[in-house]
Amino acid sequence: MSDSTTDPSLSSFLDVDANHPFPIQNLPYGVFTPPASTVPRVGVAIGDHVLDLAVLNEEGALDVPEIRDAHPFAQGTLNAFMDLGTSAWTTTRNELQRLLRADTPKLRDDTSLRERVLHPRTDVSLQLPVDIGDYTDFYSSKQHARNVGTMFRGPENALKDNWVHLPVGYHGRASSVILSGQDVQRPCGQTRPDADEPPIYGPSQLLDFELETGFFVGDGNDLGSPIPIDEASDHIFGMVLVNDWSARDIQGWEYEPLGPFLGKSFATTISPWVVPMEALEPFRTDGPSQDPEPLDYLQADGDAAYDITLEVGLQTPSMADPHTVCRTNFRYLYWTMRQQLAHHTVNGCNVRPGDLLASGTISGPTEDSYGSMLELSWRGEEPVSLPGDERRSFLNDGDRVVMRGYAQGDGYRIGFGTAEGTVRPAPCA
Amino acid sequence: MSDSTTDPSLSSFLDVDANHPFPIQNLPYGVFTPPASTVPRVGVAIGDHVLDLAVLNEEGALDVPEIRDAHPFAQGTLNAFMDLGTSAWTTTRNELQRLLRADTPKLRDDTSLRERVLHPRTDVSLQLPVDIGDYTDFYSSKQHARNVGTMFRGPENALKDNWVHLPVGYHGRASSVILSGQDVQRPCGQTRPDADEPPIYGPSQLLDFELETGFFVGDGNDLGSPIPIDEASDHIFGMVLVNDWSARDIQGWEYEPLGPFLGKSFATTISPWVVPMEALEPFRTDGPSQDPEPLDYLQADGDAAYDITLEVGLQTPSMADPHTVCRTNFRYLYWTMRQQLAHHTVNGCNVRPGDLLASGTISGPTEDSYGSMLELSWRGEEPVSLPGDERRSFLNDGDRVVMRGYAQGDGYRIGFGTAEGTVRPAPCA
Repeated sequence: MSDSTTDPSLSSFLDVDANHPFPIQNLPYGVFTPPASTVPRVGVAIGDHVLDLAVLNEEGALDVPEIRDAHPFAQGTLNAFMDLGTSAWTTTRNELQRLLRADTPKLRDDTSLRERVLHPRTDVSLQLPVDIGDYTDFYSSKQHARNVGTMFRGPENALKDNWVHLPVGYHGRASSVILSGQDVQRPCGQTRPDADEPPIYGPSQLLDFELETGFFVGDGNDLGSPIPIDEASDHIFGMVLVNDWSARDIQGWEYEPLGPFLGKSFATTISPWVVPMEALEPFRTDGPSQDPEPLDYLQADGDAAYDITLEVGLQTPSMADPHTVCRTNFRYLYWTMRQQLAHHTVNGCNVRPGDLLASGTISGPTEDSYGSMLELSWRGEEPVSLPGDERRSFLNDGDRVVMRGYAQGDGYRIGFGTAEGTVRPAPCA
Repeated sequence: MSDSTTDPSLSSFLDVDANHPFPIQNLPYGVFTPPASTVPRVGVAIGDHVLDLAVLNEEGALDVPEIRDAHPFAQGTLNAFMDLGTSAWTTTRNELQRLLRADTPKLRDDTSLRERVLHPRTDVSLQLPVDIGDYTDFYSSKQHARNVGTMFRGPENALKDNWVHLPVGYHGRASSVILSGQDVQRPCGQTRPDADEPPIYGPSQLLDFELETGFFVGDGNDLGSPIPIDEASDHIFGMVLVNDWSARDIQGWEYEPLGPFLGKSFATTISPWVVPMEALEPFRTDGPSQDPEPLDYLQADGDAAYDITLEVGLQTPSMADPHTVCRTNFRYLYWTMRQQLAHHTVNGCNVRPGDLLASGTISGPTEDSYGSMLELSWRGEEPVSLPGDERRSFLNDGDRVVMRGYAQGDGYRIGFGTAEGTVRPAPCA
């Protein structure tokens, strides 16, 4: 990685505020359709603009040999670019930073080119940036696992025996991963609110969010060839915010013995911009100590946690703005992304470019850092207070959930944009 | 559906034995590459031949208006054809039967056309016929659930409370679904054989098969719009055999509380030919009675089980042929395919063309009809006897597992071909 990618003094010829999520140090990737076109293509966010990488490459303005003939940006998804691997990602990122620097005249001074490749963010439509082949959800926050376990099994049995030995996870539903901004319909389904009565059909009464992050696999592995943990980082392309919407009553009734299914598969929201791991490099830090020591295949040197502030805002129909109900940090995660990927493939399972591996709910050590309403309201026993004397144990129709995340640099922020959605009434209501 | 599709007296100008799996009444779809080409396309199996639908359509020899301009057969997967829906499937099937009938001269008497579109099966290479977006595995055999539950929790708690109220299922791994014939590598991973000792890393010691069937979704539904059970059959394209290879020791250590993960995701084998539901129509029959009565959204009129004989053959390295270790029937399944699909989408979850929904292990009422080694050897307590004084509790390296299935008609069989694979040693051994 070149030094320039982590240089706080780096600045663009485009004005970007110090608190803006998308400075030149970030350059997250997304897929968008510009005005007057119907053809989606790959872009990066820079300040309040989107830079069209497809046109930039077609016009020969992107000096990246690995990219020029591969045309990975003239695509409706990031998968082809992800598949090219770390060398192409780094070269592309360095070239984009060079083009956008305040002291590079090429794009800065070419008004015609700027008009063709730089669009105000509000003029373009964003779409799901990745064709997600498989979506896996982990359960890697110890505080979250302990909170949920305590509620349902008591403090003595909060963590299952396996939890401290391996990153517990499960296969999620790829088809219902949706883009931030899309409404989420309250699911109908089967629940059993009274254990002495038969189960019933109807709208979920315990709709929840789960604050998570996720990473996308870059180049994958062949079936039968595990990714060793020392190589795992090279297979991680970038990160997004994830809201793993959950229907607690559906989940609670269905999940034994095969795990979550319809309580999750009605919607999973991701933020639109994929933040490259290189942009997060300055924010590496140590995570929780792991005791007992993991088996060798889960051990690697160096810090693998990241200092990323994460927040959830909740806005009811009577509120003008979201109210922050949770503030936590990615660094609280017990299991790292490289451990998750090494574990996922240790049995030979193949991952493919664009596969999404999510963290599980990220809860911190304090009561205001829990990443779900289930925990914040402690199963409804202590409803969350909101401005205007409102209270919530779970989500009501019309409630809007806004997740934000950023790593705070010296004079700049690496932001994730938002993963947001509003709850619409159930069709069976 | 036209009468011709279920006519036992229907015969082709191609010789097909009465016990052959692929008579004119079947016509299962697959994807193949003919000799002297590298371009895969869609075909149907007829006797020992494969009929090239892409060339047939390109040459105007297939009189199906819905198909002509859509070119769904000049593709490397069945997804485009699946997406066209029941009307196109029926019209295509009727036209193919007409073309292949003994009394239709068009193809029969055109030697040149026959040479271009009819390939001996042994001359072509088959590939995975479907791009599987999401793979779901159910747990719909009551006998299987009871067997496994009895082993691990005792007979009183064998079935969880939810089992008789809904078709329990979980998301599986789509990336590692492989074609019959591909070897399966014994997985490495974390297990805890001794609960008083720390977990260990190494090759799975309890490798198993699971005899299942699966169906492919045809046209899907929009997110938020459940498929009502009365419409579910219209969304089911066809069926395959499924071997849900399982590493019992990995699964047993990892699965609480989020379900099976690496104990399954190393490989899932499917048979190469997708048998259309229309071919199975004559074999509809009643399944087990459902008590308690399911909720309304899981109720529909008419028989929805199918009389399909299923067998598993096991061949060790010292045996010349597979020995049948299990003979069971699809009709033993408690939950029907349309119940599975209605339940899967009741929360608004979207299914897409090519999604695979598998049955779960299909065990019958007798000890020789159990669909896994776990059950056949009763957790290793009663090893299965094989010819030549060999015994097996689970699978050894070099063991070959061959699954077969067929519905027996009057003078013809609707066969599935085989789902087979041989166990290769673990890379960590």
